[in-house]
Amino acid sequence: MSEAVESAYARLSVMEEGEFAGWHYWEGDPYETRSGPFFHRREADGSFVSAFRAEPRHMNGAGFMHGGCLMTFADFALFAIATDALAGDSAVTLNLSGDFLGPVAPGALVEARGEVTRGGGKTIFVRGMVTGDGNPALSFTGIIRRLSRR
Amino acid sequence: MSEAVESAYARLSVMEEGEFAGWHYWEGDPYETRSGPFFHRREADGSFVSAFRAEPRHMNGAGFMHGGCLMTFADFALFAIATDALAGDSAVTLNLSGDFLGPVAPGALVEARGEVTRGGGKTIFVRGMVTGDGNPALSFTGIIRRLSRR
Amino acid sequence: MSEAVESAYARLSVMEEGEFAGWHYWEGDPYETRSGPFFHRREADGSFVSAFRAEPRHMNGAGFMHGGCLMTFADFALFAIATDALAGDSAVTLNLSGDFLGPVAPGALVEARGEVTRGGGKTIFVRGMVTGDGNPALSFTGIIRRLSRR
Amino acid sequence: MSEAVESAYARLSVMEEGEFAGWHYWEGDPYETRSGPFFHRREADGSFVSAFRAEPRHMNGAGFMHGGCLMTFADFALFAIATDALAGDSAVTLNLSGDFLGPVAPGALVEARGEVTRGGGKTIFVRGMVTGDGNPALSFTGIIRRLSRR
Repeated sequence: MSEAVESAYARLSVMEEGEFAGWHYWEGDPYETRSGPFFHRREADGSFVSAFRAEPRHMNGAGFMHGGCLMTFADFALFAIATDALAGDSAVTLNLSGDFLGPVAPGALVEARGEVTRGGGKTIFVRGMVTGDGNPALSFTGIIRRLSRR
Repeated sequence: MSEAVESAYARLSVMEEGEFAGWHYWEGDPYETRSGPFFHRREADGSFVSAFRAEPRHMNGAGFMHGGCLMTFADFALFAIATDALAGDSAVTLNLSGDFLGPVAPGALVEARGEVTRGGGKTIFVRGMVTGDGNPALSFTGIIRRLSRR
Repeated sequence: MSEAVESAYARLSVMEEGEFAGWHYWEGDPYETRSGPFFHRREADGSFVSAFRAEPRHMNGAGFMHGGCLMTFADFALFAIATDALAGDSAVTLNLSGDFLGPVAPGALVEARGEVTRGGGKTIFVRGMVTGDGNPALSFTGIIRRLSRR
Repeated sequence: MSEAVESAYARLSVMEEGEFAGWHYWEGDPYETRSGPFFHRREADGSFVSAFRAEPRHMNGAGFMHGGCLMTFADFALFAIATDALAGDSAVTLNLSGDFLGPVAPGALVEARGEVTRGGGKTIFVRGMVTGDGNPALSFTGIIRRLSRR
């Protein structure tokens, strides 16, 4: 796929069908694919939005989205938000913190947006918000560490 | 199942076979079951240990356990660690924070142990550690909020 | 002082002179007064900004603002940001987390702005940013708990 | 002072009188000295304990220790706990997170203990607990970053 960016580990591919046709996702990440897959794309203003559609398989025993699913999506979103700061470099998560603000029900459009609060160096700081149908669900912060220059 | 504790949402059941025979797990939590299932049991000293066996499906694109999987397991472990403080009450997670300390490879025995740093009231504070084959993988803290007295 | 709001513990007063004339501060909080004092006011858009002027006494051994000073100011700012959500109620901090983004030097104008990410109930979630002369210094999140209705 | 370790910025000195005679503190850190001073020493088991005596000047408007004071002490304790991992190198705090567990009253002996959960590299992870007269007050985690090899 010509749009694909090869990383050391996984391949950034473009979804070709369905609700997220034209969005990017990572192929070759078993847990993320199985949890999601999750998608991201660049918006007109240059920022990145991540998204997926909530299904019954994402829920906990109470019928709302599992906190672990929200955190897994946030971990995905960290790297989408940091796309420009990473400039193609590999990175690992050092810290991920989340405040759970409200429930997400099956059928909701789940999105994550955020900003790099400090980039440029080896340590990149991000903060963001996950929403379900536009309502706050998870406020998160993350610190990622660049592993290598490409 | 006679040992099962009925909660408002999910049912604490006993695994009957395999490596975790005799351990407890929650039935009726789709995301957790699909991510794990994860197990817990009370140790001789009264504390709770949570555990599962790392498989390729838990990994990220680099072949190590996905941060989201570690956080999902930590969210499970929060409630195991807080078993006595909860005394059967339902609860929700308010905050979950994790420091990623080291990789976990497929095949590793993944365990979580920890302690309630403040219980007794409606807000319960926990800290814990996830290990892979005994090596530190995720240091986590969590705050959970009791929803109701049974 | 007629503008003063009496809380259970400290008194919200108005600074009458100097750079922060017309801003509010809490009288009767020894550590905060000694660290600052710190000031806040409502902006034209309804949000709250907190501020103080960096002095040599706020610095660490390297000559930049001490992390503890930034966190103390963030703890102050949590309550300013949550003014409307608190509606005069007393509250305590449950969690305060900070990512240190950049140094603040003596002489800088230190400000904090942020938002309530979830209010309305007994548990109030806040996130914010401390800047020094407009440059990011501390990204913070906090959870505060309402103690009582007035 | 022969025991003093010269760092790039401040000088580790030995207190010569009073309750903390024989304990170490950093000279040349204005905010820390003014907040404390805080002290640390190595225990017989090789670990480090940090301590100070709570005074009225450390309190908030409710008469209990200010959250900012607890966080400032935790930031100090991070570096004491990481003494062996740092091996004399300078470092900065990247993240500091605290869960507030209980009040500390004037007169209490305030102590902090903890452990390096990951050391060895440039990024050092710590977790610890601040107590007041032995009762849990602040559970904290921190990430510090080594700046330079001496």
